[in-house]
Amino acid sequence: MGDNDDSEIIEHHVDEEMEKKGTRSHAASSSFLESVTPSDREGNSGTQSSHRLLAYSDALVSIIATVMILPVAHTKVEDNEELRESFQLLLTTKIAVYLMTFLIVTVAWAAHIRLFQVIVRIDDCLALLNLACMMLITFLPYTFSLMATFPKNVLGILLFCGCVMVMGVIQSVIVLYAFSRPFLLNEQIQISENQTFYKHHILKVIMRVPLMCFFASIFSFIFFPLSYMLLAIVIFLPYISQSLKWCRSKAIGQVEETPDSMLFYTYLPNEPLSKDRVEAFSDGVYAIVATLLILDICEDNVPDPTVVQNQFGGSLIAALQVYGPEFLAYFGSFATVGLLWFVHHSLFLHVTKTTRFMGLLNTFSLAFVGGLPLAYQLTHEFPHNSRNELEAIQISCVIIFFAGIFQLTIWVVALYSEQETLHPYVRYGGREHVFMLAKLALYPCVALGTFFLTCILSKFSAQIFHLMEITVPFAFLVLRLLVRAGLALLRLIFCPDRPDPRSVVEEEDDETRVPFNALVT
Amino acid sequence: MGDNDDSEIIEHHVDEEMEKKGTRSHAASSSFLESVTPSDREGNSGTQSSHRLLAYSDALVSIIATVMILPVAHTKVEDNEELRESFQLLLTTKIAVYLMTFLIVTVAWAAHIRLFQVIVRIDDCLALLNLACMMLITFLPYTFSLMATFPKNVLGILLFCGCVMVMGVIQSVIVLYAFSRPFLLNEQIQISENQTFYKHHILKVIMRVPLMCFFASIFSFIFFPLSYMLLAIVIFLPYISQSLKWCRSKAIGQVEETPDSMLFYTYLPNEPLSKDRVEAFSDGVYAIVATLLILDICEDNVPDPTVVQNQFGGSLIAALQVYGPEFLAYFGSFATVGLLWFVHHSLFLHVTKTTRFMGLLNTFSLAFVGGLPLAYQLTHEFPHNSRNELEAIQISCVIIFFAGIFQLTIWVVALYSEQETLHPYVRYGGREHVFMLAKLALYPCVALGTFFLTCILSKFSAQIFHLMEITVPFAFLVLRLLVRAGLALLRLIFCPDRPDPRSVVEEEDDETRVPFNALVT
Repeated sequence: MGDNDDSEIIEHHVDEEMEKKGTRSHAASSSFLESVTPSDREGNSGTQSSHRLLAYSDALVSIIATVMILPVAHTKVEDNEELRESFQLLLTTKIAVYLMTFLIVTVAWAAHIRLFQVIVRIDDCLALLNLACMMLITFLPYTFSLMATFPKNVLGILLFCGCVMVMGVIQSVIVLYAFSRPFLLNEQIQISENQTFYKHHILKVIMRVPLMCFFASIFSFIFFPLSYMLLAIVIFLPYISQSLKWCRSKAIGQVEETPDSMLFYTYLPNEPLSKDRVEAFSDGVYAIVATLLILDICEDNVPDPTVVQNQFGGSLIAALQVYGPEFLAYFGSFATVGLLWFVHHSLFLHVTKTTRFMGLLNTFSLAFVGGLPLAYQLTHEFPHNSRNELEAIQISCVIIFFAGIFQLTIWVVALYSEQETLHPYVRYGGREHVFMLAKLALYPCVALGTFFLTCILSKFSAQIFHLMEITVPFAFLVLRLLVRAGLALLRLIFCPDRPDPRSVVEEEDDETRVPFNALVT
Repeated sequence: MGDNDDSEIIEHHVDEEMEKKGTRSHAASSSFLESVTPSDREGNSGTQSSHRLLAYSDALVSIIATVMILPVAHTKVEDNEELRESFQLLLTTKIAVYLMTFLIVTVAWAAHIRLFQVIVRIDDCLALLNLACMMLITFLPYTFSLMATFPKNVLGILLFCGCVMVMGVIQSVIVLYAFSRPFLLNEQIQISENQTFYKHHILKVIMRVPLMCFFASIFSFIFFPLSYMLLAIVIFLPYISQSLKWCRSKAIGQVEETPDSMLFYTYLPNEPLSKDRVEAFSDGVYAIVATLLILDICEDNVPDPTVVQNQFGGSLIAALQVYGPEFLAYFGSFATVGLLWFVHHSLFLHVTKTTRFMGLLNTFSLAFVGGLPLAYQLTHEFPHNSRNELEAIQISCVIIFFAGIFQLTIWVVALYSEQETLHPYVRYGGREHVFMLAKLALYPCVALGTFFLTCILSKFSAQIFHLMEITVPFAFLVLRLLVRAGLALLRLIFCPDRPDPRSVVEEEDDETRVPFNALVT
């Protein structure tokens, strides 16, 4: 026991069980797993479960994913028609950087999820390595801004590739370290016979991206457009390899694979993605986005005492009225983001398993949510009834629409394999099915309606938009009543021979209710 | 059943159990509670557990608590000696606003925790009410900036009091709503006979603060310093009422109380505070603070292409070298905040119950952590070997010291009632006791050491500080070895008759190990 000195560094308390059994071999771990129930290991015995480390990582990543919206938000709009084009070019660049960052960071985050679905327990060493990894992820947005501002300079590419390569090395170290202490691993791998196969498979997948980046950084000296292409391939790598596999299977028939290898790092659209982490990441993004405007308000919208004295005759209220639109924008965007979070929350309450494809749709939805406060701010920034105001309002509607429609798509995708991914209540024909549909469809419908209304009644666009902002929260409050009334109405129209629609609803409810009661009791 | 129409609005699925049992009375709920295991209720049956709502609220509150550091960070330092005084006044005001906001927001957050320790399940209506409450909390920092900038204007006070009063009303509605649907409540209250007593007790406590704010807003018209005093009382209300109670008990003897009333809203220092939420809030603050500098860097430190062309002859690297100090500051502060998080994580891994007093200490620690990136930024902003640089470095050391020492204090406080609050491993004499002490003491000791070293060798202060930044992460990596070596050395000095220190350590380990093995297997 004196030999494996460094293994003493591990704080993992399960440790002792294994030492007591006098062996550290993998074969023994399966019997060990059977003898100790999960609650014994996770509970008060102080095992370092990875839960909080992952929550912290999710918080960091969600901040970084949304941070590049700030340069977009702080681009001041000029009403000068001459500057309009150069301004639009600048804005487009910044929005492109924001979307690229969001995509890249969520790809890195997905890789992180995958890694920690294999490694389920941590020790101090892994925690510190993970922090180093996080530091590099948080630096990625900056390399992107450099690339966008200096597209022909290799420095941005080199920095980006450098970060990714170091991250790859750290992740490999994490994998090697975890496999040398198998009690840190997922139980499925712990009891598996071919751990070495897993290790090599995972390392191969992890090193793929840094390797591509290595080539990209070399090519950047020779012919830099090629390195951009390589980087684009990096993002879409899983999809490309997936379609290649599919083509191969069509061409030469299904290649047999070890069934084990299909559990982790498969990159199939229905590969499970930790639901907790998707929720934590989404919560982080929604929280940052909801507060994005108040950050600006707190910093910029406190008037200077001398200005108040000289320009407004000492009347603070008059001075604050100038900032009125900013406050309106804040409350409007907070309410909209909060309600979109509420819809997301209701949806994921009934989702029992998150797949990779659902995660991707969620990312798209979040990317639009990120742009929302900005769009709201614009709606209040222009003079009344100007063309700009109408445009800003319509852009807001489009953003809300897409944020909502991607949420709806998640549900639709989940419905395709509802037996696996959805709670019985919201499956087709389930008790909550219609209500969930109404919840998810409310924002897209309202946004679409507002969009077309503002097209027709462009003179009252601001009024229509404000009315929408105010009514939607109340619509959510009474949504269940509305759905019930709507259903009753439909019944009344199509089955007029049944006189009391309420009792019909009750009856139907009771019918659908029986199996679930039977299920629980 | 047709009567309680609105109860149908509730999404709570446990509902059906109760309806099936044909009763909604409180007496029945106890038998119901026994018949359904928690996993049945919480698990796949779609009960809206409040977990994610609380996580989202924690994320929002942690952002808001740290946001007022931004105006401090963006106050540009002038090297002009004449402006120095007015600058320092401005900075002091902003720092005061930051600390006040942090305190007020954490007080509001503690009230929120308390509320949702009573209400453990939610439905759509509660979720929406909670969002409204959050919107008001996020607005509080702004009212504080107004108060600080215009101390003699009543508008700031009125706005603040208005927010707090509306929040009080919303919270009362939440309480009334939850008590009208008892299955949303904590099980202890659900099975309790005197629910009405609880309701009145909680409402009384909740309405205390809005009532004080109401008086403060009235006094602000008559004599505004009085309203500031009232607001200060609001913050320290629990402590004041606690000490009043204590005085009364000393004067006229212990007043008997219903034992039930002592479970919630007691404001005793050892009142339990949800550990999950303390962790979530801390994670949020650490994550925001760690990324605070990269937000600025991404926005401000991308050079303009024309500037690079004209001033640096097209060399991007030369242009970026100007920003070198900012990058250093970022990596330094990220590493320090990350490691402080790591210490916090290790500590709370072994804390089994969080009390209100520990929460307060945690808040103090976090308030110092919030100032850290700023201090780091300052250390790199001044010319080498200037008086300002030395001051900035020493301020950084002081901030790190206090952030660390409050963490250590949490542990010391926990040790006082270690049977309740700590895991056996880290209790006095436990296996991990010394190691935990070393972990918690590392940053305070290093910061103190650096502080005094820079006092003596003020010429090399920057070098000492950089050395500290670089060595500490590695110190954490090998800390267990260091502690082991240190203990062995101590043993060697004080018990020189035992020749092999390693075997002694092993032996002692085995001794302490036995009970826990027995405990688990």
